[in-house]
Amino acid sequence: MPDAEGRPEPGAGTVGGARRRLSRRALFAAGGVTALAGGGAAGAVLRARREERAADVIPFHGSRQAGILTPRQRYVRMAAFDLGTGTGRGRAAALLLRWSTAAERLGRGEPPGPELEPPGSRAAETGALAGTSPARLTLTFGLGPGFFDRTGLTAERPEALAPLPEFAGDRLDAARSDGDLFVQIGADDAFVTAHVLRTLQRLAHGEARLRWTMTGFTAADGRRNLMGQLDGTGNPDPARALLDGPGVPGWLSGGSYVVVRRIRMLLDHWDTLPAGHREQALGRRSADGAPLTGGSGRTPADLAATRPDGVPVIAANAHIRLAAPASNGGATLLRRSWSYHDGLRSDGAADAGLLFTAWQPDPRTGFVPVQHRLSRGDALSRYLVHEASALFVVPGGSRPGGYPAQALLEG
Amino acid sequence: MPDAEGRPEPGAGTVGGARRRLSRRALFAAGGVTALAGGGAAGAVLRARREERAADVIPFHGSRQAGILTPRQRYVRMAAFDLGTGTGRGRAAALLLRWSTAAERLGRGEPPGPELEPPGSRAAETGALAGTSPARLTLTFGLGPGFFDRTGLTAERPEALAPLPEFAGDRLDAARSDGDLFVQIGADDAFVTAHVLRTLQRLAHGEARLRWTMTGFTAADGRRNLMGQLDGTGNPDPARALLDGPGVPGWLSGGSYVVVRRIRMLLDHWDTLPAGHREQALGRRSADGAPLTGGSGRTPADLAATRPDGVPVIAANAHIRLAAPASNGGATLLRRSWSYHDGLRSDGAADAGLLFTAWQPDPRTGFVPVQHRLSRGDALSRYLVHEASALFVVPGGSRPGGYPAQALLEG
Repeated sequence: MPDAEGRPEPGAGTVGGARRRLSRRALFAAGGVTALAGGGAAGAVLRARREERAADVIPFHGSRQAGILTPRQRYVRMAAFDLGTGTGRGRAAALLLRWSTAAERLGRGEPPGPELEPPGSRAAETGALAGTSPARLTLTFGLGPGFFDRTGLTAERPEALAPLPEFAGDRLDAARSDGDLFVQIGADDAFVTAHVLRTLQRLAHGEARLRWTMTGFTAADGRRNLMGQLDGTGNPDPARALLDGPGVPGWLSGGSYVVVRRIRMLLDHWDTLPAGHREQALGRRSADGAPLTGGSGRTPADLAATRPDGVPVIAANAHIRLAAPASNGGATLLRRSWSYHDGLRSDGAADAGLLFTAWQPDPRTGFVPVQHRLSRGDALSRYLVHEASALFVVPGGSRPGGYPAQALLEG
Repeated sequence: MPDAEGRPEPGAGTVGGARRRLSRRALFAAGGVTALAGGGAAGAVLRARREERAADVIPFHGSRQAGILTPRQRYVRMAAFDLGTGTGRGRAAALLLRWSTAAERLGRGEPPGPELEPPGSRAAETGALAGTSPARLTLTFGLGPGFFDRTGLTAERPEALAPLPEFAGDRLDAARSDGDLFVQIGADDAFVTAHVLRTLQRLAHGEARLRWTMTGFTAADGRRNLMGQLDGTGNPDPARALLDGPGVPGWLSGGSYVVVRRIRMLLDHWDTLPAGHREQALGRRSADGAPLTGGSGRTPADLAATRPDGVPVIAANAHIRLAAPASNGGATLLRRSWSYHDGLRSDGAADAGLLFTAWQPDPRTGFVPVQHRLSRGDALSRYLVHEASALFVVPGGSRPGGYPAQALLEG
């Protein structure tokens, strides 16, 4: 069944075309047989374990980076790093190669390997992931504007990687925004994402410093966010988020641009609204995500429909009207969002909301016009505060032994 | 296979004695059949879904509270609330009944129900958990010293609920310590724990204010913490953590005392130690958790063993020597810990470590003497900072329609 958040990678992390998990019970039962019967059954257990692992493996290398069209994992850690002043093109390339080699191994459930430890670092892998499934781990790398300056590639910086404009109502924290290098670490296991982030930090020793990190999660069985809305409804064909065609440089082919926004929800306020008011603000029914003009979650909204008294069924300031491609010159965004809840703010409110990412071939015709409209008139916006923001260019994929953006850095 | 962190609740959350999950693939496949063949298959899908749900349900009511002997779930949100000055015994009882009724329903995957909304609250359930499995949700309630004062029950406060002493090296944040009411929300889904916490806050309107909340996770397949150690090795028979016997008041029978400690790990330092040094500090092998005196993770350490040169194999300041019951007058603690990684501290270090809980029939002969020894001499302690601390008495279980501590509050 296709996930509205993105189509499965062809063949990625699949056994026989569908993700398969062997139950622990089956493995333990087989283990019991081993203890009694010896070697033959042990082989079966090892094969079963390998098979279980394979089902949780998403290849790092490929024509595009994993983690864009990959169905959302249950947990994500996003992070941005800043390159050191001394890190030029060669050392940045070496860092990306170290990270990519480690990503490929971690994605298979293997440790990164001692030869990847950077020169001058005394830290080493402690084996925290030993015995742990990679849990569909993906690492997706992006480059911020500063990356091009630090590596002497300012002339190669794509025009579309221009700073995002200020939007109405933005209350951005600079310390949690922007950055030279971006990584999205997705997995079905929060322990895996936490240790992988530490691994990347260790491998960046001397070259790049962690600037910010943010964490998100999704429900196992649902696409609802903490406001109770079904998220990602009405997403476009995910492939439209990718760059392609004759004008695209080779290192960007199959790539994208990702906008990252930390959007705090004013949940204490939201939860006091009458249910009808909440549905009007969104333009969809809470129960099934169908537009207020009827149908199911997959039915397009009829933005022209009016009630007998002439009032539009979907309000003029409803979120789905203002976000609709038809309202934004056809702009389409692939939205992949996670919820976050980082505890209590000093004002007593929940520090909770949406860790939102939007992927598109050009933010100037994607996120920027849509967010301008939403921030000015969207009925939902009064319950949202954008607290962090970043834009990165996401290179295309890489071949085994290589790394994303290799053609840019070694061109 | 028994989990070293705790034995499964008899019959809790199990189908045929073992937890069982139906794969999404199977459900979707069956759904496809339904679309083609109609009603008969639809019944099978519904039954399959019900069965999947049942496997993820741990009953709230019982002779003891769930969440103590329950095998650790993958995610936890712990929280403490402070009662309002006007909340006396009757209203505290009403709050615990509301919470317990909601806990029982949420644990079955049902919404709490509008009749539970407290008087004067305008907030309502937004349905964020609709369609989501309860994911082995447990709620475990505890009472802090202030609870007894606020409810006029100071005379009933157990002596063992005395403030914990200060330990060497403690750097406690009062804002994240202590509290009148404690709740441990465990589930295999972080979205569930996040929304359940918000639900408890909503149902506490006018009576109790969230004081602190902390989040933790475990790896799906492992018991390692972020230092790479196998956690919970050497835990006692979990039932020894529970109160029982003639001297125990009825409301405490089957209960316990829980110490909650937020223990930050100095991971940047730890990761630079040679592997042998790390093993010496712990007294166990990293690879399998076996004591340095040999055997497996389940082999007791031979604390008397010496090397040919007379030096103890397990160092005098090794963690497992100082934490051993034999070193602490037989004190035993049931340890149930989760990892946390809350991002970056302002000093650039990881705000990461262990959300540690220790359960015992009396902290004065349990956590207190053990932690005194550890904090003074443990080789591991120099890589740990205790940043938050709380002690709660955990009442025994409750009957359907009731709530923990009912006999105390209505006695």
